[in-house]
Amino acid sequence: MLDRLQPPIVLAPLAGGPSTPALVAAVCEAGAFGFLASGYLRPAALAEQLAELRSLTRRPFGVNLFIPAPRPADPATYAPYVEEIGRWAGARGLPVGEPWFDDDAYTEKLDLLIRDPAPVVSFTFGMPDAEAVGRLHDAGSEVWVTVTTPSEAAIAVAGGADALVLQGTEAGGHRGSFSDDDSRPGYSTLSLLQLLAGTPRPLVAAGGLMSGAGIAAALAAGARAAQLGTAFLLCPEAGTAAPHRAALRRGDVPTKVTRAFTGRAARGIVNEFMAEHDAAAVSAYPEIHHVTQPLRRQARADGDAAAINLWAGEAYALARELPAAELVRVLATELADAA
Amino acid sequence: MLDRLQPPIVLAPLAGGPSTPALVAAVCEAGAFGFLASGYLRPAALAEQLAELRSLTRRPFGVNLFIPAPRPADPATYAPYVEEIGRWAGARGLPVGEPWFDDDAYTEKLDLLIRDPAPVVSFTFGMPDAEAVGRLHDAGSEVWVTVTTPSEAAIAVAGGADALVLQGTEAGGHRGSFSDDDSRPGYSTLSLLQLLAGTPRPLVAAGGLMSGAGIAAALAAGARAAQLGTAFLLCPEAGTAAPHRAALRRGDVPTKVTRAFTGRAARGIVNEFMAEHDAAAVSAYPEIHHVTQPLRRQARADGDAAAINLWAGEAYALARELPAAELVRVLATELADAA
Repeated sequence: MLDRLQPPIVLAPLAGGPSTPALVAAVCEAGAFGFLASGYLRPAALAEQLAELRSLTRRPFGVNLFIPAPRPADPATYAPYVEEIGRWAGARGLPVGEPWFDDDAYTEKLDLLIRDPAPVVSFTFGMPDAEAVGRLHDAGSEVWVTVTTPSEAAIAVAGGADALVLQGTEAGGHRGSFSDDDSRPGYSTLSLLQLLAGTPRPLVAAGGLMSGAGIAAALAAGARAAQLGTAFLLCPEAGTAAPHRAALRRGDVPTKVTRAFTGRAARGIVNEFMAEHDAAAVSAYPEIHHVTQPLRRQARADGDAAAINLWAGEAYALARELPAAELVRVLATELADAA
Repeated sequence: MLDRLQPPIVLAPLAGGPSTPALVAAVCEAGAFGFLASGYLRPAALAEQLAELRSLTRRPFGVNLFIPAPRPADPATYAPYVEEIGRWAGARGLPVGEPWFDDDAYTEKLDLLIRDPAPVVSFTFGMPDAEAVGRLHDAGSEVWVTVTTPSEAAIAVAGGADALVLQGTEAGGHRGSFSDDDSRPGYSTLSLLQLLAGTPRPLVAAGGLMSGAGIAAALAAGARAAQLGTAFLLCPEAGTAAPHRAALRRGDVPTKVTRAFTGRAARGIVNEFMAEHDAAAVSAYPEIHHVTQPLRRQARADGDAAAINLWAGEAYALARELPAAELVRVLATELADAA
């Protein structure tokens, strides 16, 4: 896929709202490569989105899957945090959910992608097992794996990944690390590209890339393509919620990595919810995600940016409010000028 | 200076031991640009090193100065931490110092550099005042200022800096931020380069750059030159202590940003001292630096890597054990291949 990609630009999967078939199709029709995010979707909704995407473009696209956590978190570790969130939400009249564990219908979504294959299937939060990789290859799909450290990259190569998506610490949204573990170091996009220069698989750089100059930098450091997410959040085709868009447009509030919203490390624009709860937040995904989801849904509907996850990469102030196809063209022009 | 620099490689100031006149001279003689670190040196020692450097090279070089903290830290904030360090050091038979405040002889060093000017004087930890900038300009020196955020960059431009050294979060050693404040966001080198693309001053990229491919990336993203520090720590001309060299050579232990050693955020390889004390460490620089300095000096002499500050950037595993001039040549060749 990457050999033919011109411009070498990939739309990151933007689970949780921003990802839409219209956004992916617009990016693909403009000559770049788009990922549809399957995270948080029920299998039937994913099937619908795939059908809609195929009706909008005949160009190749990808689908991203979340690897489920290996086991539920110990309730004792997150009970006090769930109580804290419950109190805070209660005082605001916002609903909360139960801290349940699930696998985001991983098996069903994988089966769906075997029956109805996409040119590329990418994974976040871990390495698919050998059987899954084999079935996807047999179905004609390339397997891309998101990695955040050299040791995760080695596992992905050994496990048969066709390409690695190197996600630097600059990235918005969830860290794609194989485990949500503070003892694992973070590396910036440029650190990863240098450390993994000898990798026998094509590298896709992700994290903090917002302009053609940034893409040119990633290519100069050895990436075959650049994956951008935050850069597309203000496109009209994206499903980005109105209060999230407003926060992105302001551009002057810093981002931070927090577990406050979902129980897994993710980068977003600092707001009241993050400032209040970051210190007490624990690693328990998807349990905490399910606790805060009703709260965030309601806050989004209310236009209340103080209570929602404002995912954004470090350099989100450079996000441009352009139709996706035009953004791809602008980035390609900037890239040509920088290279 | 930057217009004539070929290859566009700058040796970072490496205060606290690694910086030597021999290292700076070797880098300059190889066609790159080297900074002598004045941090922690008494003015007489700086004068001696300047004389030695001038005896070794006639090529242009720079000197780096630390901007002093505006006021001492409140002793109440650091007293418990000083006690903790004292207990730990006592149990190991290591000496500690007093938590005193000083300005690292800033005024005397600045006066020395007015009498005996260097082609470039760079600053870390803040912006020199208008009088200092004016005196340096009158003496014929360029003024470069280390910045870590867009707002620091705006201050540096407004204050008359001739070039900005953009230091990303990947960098080893102290964060060069104007204040040691957790509420200030970090930005990677590539995030900074993109965010500051329109800056009306030449940009020098610093942080995590270890290979010609990394330098090429920085240039593609708009830097005029790349400043490397960790990459030179294993050069024989560097004053890097033996246990620090051994830790760099291992290459497999992650780095982390900590205030444990000096009371100011700095990135180093995780070791016992950092793991034990990071959680309790406070922001109080240079007070904590003075407390731990005798301890670290003794541990260095003992070859005890567990108790010393093993400053290193994120990608330090790529540091090469080559004479400095050869390293400059290798980097230049890699850069030409990547560009």
